[in-house]
Amino acid sequence: MTGSTLPSSSPDGQPGAAAPEALGRAGALVTPAIDEAVRRLGPELRLPAQHHLQGGGKRVRAALVLLSAAAVGADERVGVVGAVAIELVHNYSLIHDDIIDEDRERRHRPTTWVEFGIGSAIVAGDALSTLALQVLLEDATAERVGATVSLAAATQAMIAGQAEDMAFESRPSVTVEECIRMEEGKTGALLSCAASLGAILAGAPARTVQALADFGSHLGTAFQAVDDMLGIWGDPAVTGKPVGSDLLRRKKTLPLATALARDDEVAVDLRELLAGELDEAAVLRAATLLDRSGVRDEMRTFADEHLRKAAEALDRVPLRPGPKAELLGIAHYVAARDR
Amino acid sequence: MTGSTLPSSSPDGQPGAAAPEALGRAGALVTPAIDEAVRRLGPELRLPAQHHLQGGGKRVRAALVLLSAAAVGADERVGVVGAVAIELVHNYSLIHDDIIDEDRERRHRPTTWVEFGIGSAIVAGDALSTLALQVLLEDATAERVGATVSLAAATQAMIAGQAEDMAFESRPSVTVEECIRMEEGKTGALLSCAASLGAILAGAPARTVQALADFGSHLGTAFQAVDDMLGIWGDPAVTGKPVGSDLLRRKKTLPLATALARDDEVAVDLRELLAGELDEAAVLRAATLLDRSGVRDEMRTFADEHLRKAAEALDRVPLRPGPKAELLGIAHYVAARDR
Repeated sequence: MTGSTLPSSSPDGQPGAAAPEALGRAGALVTPAIDEAVRRLGPELRLPAQHHLQGGGKRVRAALVLLSAAAVGADERVGVVGAVAIELVHNYSLIHDDIIDEDRERRHRPTTWVEFGIGSAIVAGDALSTLALQVLLEDATAERVGATVSLAAATQAMIAGQAEDMAFESRPSVTVEECIRMEEGKTGALLSCAASLGAILAGAPARTVQALADFGSHLGTAFQAVDDMLGIWGDPAVTGKPVGSDLLRRKKTLPLATALARDDEVAVDLRELLAGELDEAAVLRAATLLDRSGVRDEMRTFADEHLRKAAEALDRVPLRPGPKAELLGIAHYVAARDR
Repeated sequence: MTGSTLPSSSPDGQPGAAAPEALGRAGALVTPAIDEAVRRLGPELRLPAQHHLQGGGKRVRAALVLLSAAAVGADERVGVVGAVAIELVHNYSLIHDDIIDEDRERRHRPTTWVEFGIGSAIVAGDALSTLALQVLLEDATAERVGATVSLAAATQAMIAGQAEDMAFESRPSVTVEECIRMEEGKTGALLSCAASLGAILAGAPARTVQALADFGSHLGTAFQAVDDMLGIWGDPAVTGKPVGSDLLRRKKTLPLATALARDDEVAVDLRELLAGELDEAAVLRAATLLDRSGVRDEMRTFADEHLRKAAEALDRVPLRPGPKAELLGIAHYVAARDR
């Protein structure tokens, strides 16, 4: 979490390219402010929240907020309050998601509900959610109110994405369009908000805010495509999850939805596999089938296309070149985790 | 939930005095607006939220918001957006509390987590929480921003109270002061916010807003004292809960904390009972001990004292007499459930 230009782990803990320097700056500026906000909570809420937050996190969203302020000509510090709020929302969603997905470990530590119980994890998440709002509205300027409205809309879209993701698990199949929409909500909405929140706080014009939001949305789609690939083909030693963990849970991620939508032999075989008992052998076979079908290459192309669209969005408006280059650097960093 | 001056059930379903007419008006004005807001959610969130909301609710908090607008000279309709927001927060907290307390029934229907699963209930609550904020900030006037800040503070205090309540269950004893503070958060904060939110939306002066908030806070304390009595001595046929349900769960409510704080024989016997296995006989014996100790009368006096303070708070500022009388009527109604 401290600033570093050394090769480091990616947002979710996989080793990858050198972490952009902006992440280190964001950590140094934002993490103490997050800690300070959380210290306002009583011990029953503070301890589970701190347990979760101490797991770390690369502050990708925080960095996007700070850079979006700098990109429109403001000091990065203008974005700090938004960065704190968005990290609080992101982390509240992780605490609740771990309960929902029954995940027992995150970043090689017991998840909050495992350590403190489901009840404490629910209320700790609830507290962080409201704290985000309180931090933003502590000084209710027009810019901060605008940021609050943007963050609330993104939070609602994120919750909708999570709810759809859950619903998909019990459905035999979902369309590619449904899957993309779900992932736009679950991952894209908060990243889109992050990439524009600093500009909102800096009072940038609506066109500029929209371009930055579009950048963040495409970045989110690319990130999620890579994350989906890791959930199927990721090395357990690297991801910290079992082989084919998403397949094991019958998660209808984009690679799977894409393969199932085809009217070919692989789709037939996959459907058969998913209808039966899913042991490790079946999961491995499904991963191999998906690879053979070419879906893996297709996902890589899909991610690259959205990275390109992310860059194009930034070209639509005048931005300061330094922060703009750093925004692009973050986009490539988070979408390059399997290279 | 429809308007009625006939004898009706109290906020939590116990038969009692005639429901104040203001509750019926609030239901007619606010319930359709709540339904409309919830219809914006996707089906995965809407269905569990609607399941919970269809259980009803007396709209006490909504009525307080509308009356606090009317009491400062505004039209009740000025308060509707605040009433919707506060009912959304109240109901989100009930959905989460039912998971936390492992309550399987509410108002004689399966709770949301029992019907839809824990995960769906968590995200449905999360969605209502954010929806409350979105409804208030749809038109970000200074008054609405002020209302949002007030609601966020009350929500955070409510969450803190819930977290303390949970923590108390596993502690051998709590002080009377700790117990009162916990209940002020858990119940009082949102009622205090409700009783002043309409005045905030109507642009009333800070002194008036504070007087109304104090009224709501004392009302909350009185209400909780009565609720605590019902949790120990309430008739299961009326409360829908087992005899001594709060004792069975070792909840450190005010009557129990008060009795345990005394240095007498009852305290010794109670401590012994609570240290052992709590079967129905032990719970009945504890309830009898508490009754014999005089705690029941003390609670009634405590509730009456806070009702008196609630009324005094309203006398501190000029208010319209009609709405003021209706505010007092609601206070007496919610605090008279065992008479």
